[in-house]
Amino acid sequence: MSAQILHADHLLTMDADNTVITHGAVLVDQDGLIGAVGPVAELAASHPGVPVRRLANRLLMPGLVNAHAHSGLLRGTAEGLPVWAWLQQHIDPMHRVVNAEEAELASRLCYAEALLSGTTTIVDMWRHMEGSARAASDLGIRAVLVPYVAEHPEHDYFETLDTNEALIERWHGGAQGRIQVWVGLEHMFYATPEAWRRCADMSRRHRVGFHTHSNESRFDVEETQRRYAMRPIQALQEFGLLDAHRVMLAHCVWTSDEEMDILAARRIGVVHNPVSNMKLASGAAPVEAMLARGIAVGLGTDGEKENNNLDMFEEMKTASLLAKLSRLDAAALDAWSVCRMATMGGARALGLDKTIGSIEAGKAADLIAVRTDTPRMTPLLGGSDGNLHHNLVHAVQGGDVDMTMVAGHIVVDNGRLLSGDLADTIAQANRAVPLLFERRAEWLRRNGTVDALRI
Amino acid sequence: MSAQILHADHLLTMDADNTVITHGAVLVDQDGLIGAVGPVAELAASHPGVPVRRLANRLLMPGLVNAHAHSGLLRGTAEGLPVWAWLQQHIDPMHRVVNAEEAELASRLCYAEALLSGTTTIVDMWRHMEGSARAASDLGIRAVLVPYVAEHPEHDYFETLDTNEALIERWHGGAQGRIQVWVGLEHMFYATPEAWRRCADMSRRHRVGFHTHSNESRFDVEETQRRYAMRPIQALQEFGLLDAHRVMLAHCVWTSDEEMDILAARRIGVVHNPVSNMKLASGAAPVEAMLARGIAVGLGTDGEKENNNLDMFEEMKTASLLAKLSRLDAAALDAWSVCRMATMGGARALGLDKTIGSIEAGKAADLIAVRTDTPRMTPLLGGSDGNLHHNLVHAVQGGDVDMTMVAGHIVVDNGRLLSGDLADTIAQANRAVPLLFERRAEWLRRNGTVDALRI
Repeated sequence: MSAQILHADHLLTMDADNTVITHGAVLVDQDGLIGAVGPVAELAASHPGVPVRRLANRLLMPGLVNAHAHSGLLRGTAEGLPVWAWLQQHIDPMHRVVNAEEAELASRLCYAEALLSGTTTIVDMWRHMEGSARAASDLGIRAVLVPYVAEHPEHDYFETLDTNEALIERWHGGAQGRIQVWVGLEHMFYATPEAWRRCADMSRRHRVGFHTHSNESRFDVEETQRRYAMRPIQALQEFGLLDAHRVMLAHCVWTSDEEMDILAARRIGVVHNPVSNMKLASGAAPVEAMLARGIAVGLGTDGEKENNNLDMFEEMKTASLLAKLSRLDAAALDAWSVCRMATMGGARALGLDKTIGSIEAGKAADLIAVRTDTPRMTPLLGGSDGNLHHNLVHAVQGGDVDMTMVAGHIVVDNGRLLSGDLADTIAQANRAVPLLFERRAEWLRRNGTVDALRI
Repeated sequence: MSAQILHADHLLTMDADNTVITHGAVLVDQDGLIGAVGPVAELAASHPGVPVRRLANRLLMPGLVNAHAHSGLLRGTAEGLPVWAWLQQHIDPMHRVVNAEEAELASRLCYAEALLSGTTTIVDMWRHMEGSARAASDLGIRAVLVPYVAEHPEHDYFETLDTNEALIERWHGGAQGRIQVWVGLEHMFYATPEAWRRCADMSRRHRVGFHTHSNESRFDVEETQRRYAMRPIQALQEFGLLDAHRVMLAHCVWTSDEEMDILAARRIGVVHNPVSNMKLASGAAPVEAMLARGIAVGLGTDGEKENNNLDMFEEMKTASLLAKLSRLDAAALDAWSVCRMATMGGARALGLDKTIGSIEAGKAADLIAVRTDTPRMTPLLGGSDGNLHHNLVHAVQGGDVDMTMVAGHIVVDNGRLLSGDLADTIAQANRAVPLLFERRAEWLRRNGTVDALRI
């Protein structure tokens, strides 16, 4: 690609000072990196001959980091149940029967949705992830692929540490570095002690992160205490899983002060999923207490079956609302903190804060343009002391994203996906789902529901 | 207008059985009423010669009823404070200085936002509402205008019962019946006992409804108990305010069983505002307990300063999430109940359930088309036992609305406002706000903050 300068009415950098530049510009160099950031007059003067693209009525900001999601095709079809019952009746039986083509299709649909709503980096825990890697490569999203691993005789239908390692070897660092592969585990209950050790070893050997779900529901905590006489994060530490190269935990809703101390001391990243935590009636994570301890907290949508969309703007708003409600304090979790969780917070939790999460020279050009010529952005008072961050957190929606650039490549423009055939993907998904459900129903007729707790 | 048949892939009627018709059609007659509803083949056969408009990749459903909102221009500029402090520092001083042109502009902006996101009826409590009536008339929205009345020596800067009555006489039933005017009151604290009586009398004399805020925060309840040794709804009853022709109360967050019994017995409508109640840290209203008592509960966004957008789809999702979280029960407030609150619930609370709230023959043709060719609507399994209602509540956003029709007139098409100049309204608002803020700052310099509780 050739270098270009993007010039927007407002440039939100998400640097350490939350700098907002009126008529700000970004030099995107030929390698897809950010070459320089500043007022457009300065950048244009210091880079003569570089074409300037004017983004009128647009705010330019860092692409959002969706730090915990699952590809999937079950939107709106597994409703009204708490986490463990929902796993038994809907989710685990789906995992028994989902095939590689369906899994790849799910990733194509979800990555398209993510890019269209301003997510440039997605952490995806999913199945048959060769297809997810192809989807991420084709669609141009930055992806951290985390196979849904189970290593337990009762759960032999998930990914395994062997398939996880094969994916690392084949895809980690792929697509010009846009794709990472981490070691995944559905939940510590889904693995034997031997597998716990292998998870941490594999993570260290390949110098990749380890990601799992923890402390999501009260049941999760109580069941861990019943089994091991410890709370979950104490158990993860005891079982050696926190000795992985890097660890990021999703949810951490019911997390004690002692557990938060461990998270801080061990530099464990956390992903807050407020919509999922409300919808599955899991609870409200102590986000502010974690931030106060310096824990890197990112934001995630969870999957299409838990949310039921992948809109990080909606997630930001819900994070703010949930914090304010749960403390009955309208000042809880201010808008800048929320913007930060959705960008630099996720980047830090992933150990990618040198690469993504803010618009600063040397980082990847992962940028989005948000329309400002909408009622949701009116009035708009510029500058760092204006209302831009409040509008982003509480008013804007994913559909207001007009342009998405990843590593210097424009993959969404004028609100349309350029890097894939969205209509075809949607049509394929609508054809695939009834067949997937037939196979799931057939499996359930033969086997009864999965006992997710037998393990 | 001439009659036409609208044919969509899916028609959600919101009738008593939640009927969903695949390839459903609506006959819109020359008076802007729904002439017939059914499968397109039947309707086209029984109405030969009536043109059929095909809405491909669209769901047709009743326009949403936003049962409590405020026009305004303060989006993202009054943040992080609980209700009463926020009133003192930001809102009441704005009310001191806002002028008629600004108020009309605010209504133009808010009604445009509402129509673009699928709201066809809005209940607007606001100021200088001659301009709001003109805005509603021009933009084509159905509106229930409720002046922000105060009748108290310490609050002589709001609307008065005299200006409220003048608005009723001039505009109630205006714009071919699209505009209603009700009697409004900011809060019972903002009126004298004499004014309480006048509110109820005026409502009965004109046979119009009465609308106020009640039981919004714990403070509201405690202060009422301190003043009158009663809870708020008991006080409203004691002071005769429930003797109005019809009553609808916004919020009702902290509402006791005894108060809910009064609401049910007196057939008082309630408006649930979950986003506002979370954002201002007010609390979680006992919506399911009210529904179980047969109380008509509508849904409202509250204003641009409390929410900070007017998207009823987001409100539906938040209603669902808040109910599930506050009871820690993922089955709380099912999706059909939420769809109903946003349509027939609001219609019933307003006493307009013979006119709006569902797609049934004889009602006004207040209809919206929602795009189904999006990831947020994928997969889409049709019929009343499909996932359409789940997708509407948990995945769809206001920006997915493609067409909005009010009383048979198309006011939004292809996602664009046809009935007003949106760009001009936005530009005017961005010019007006700094001037409004300068006058507010000047007032505060001279007078100090308003003591909203001195009354």
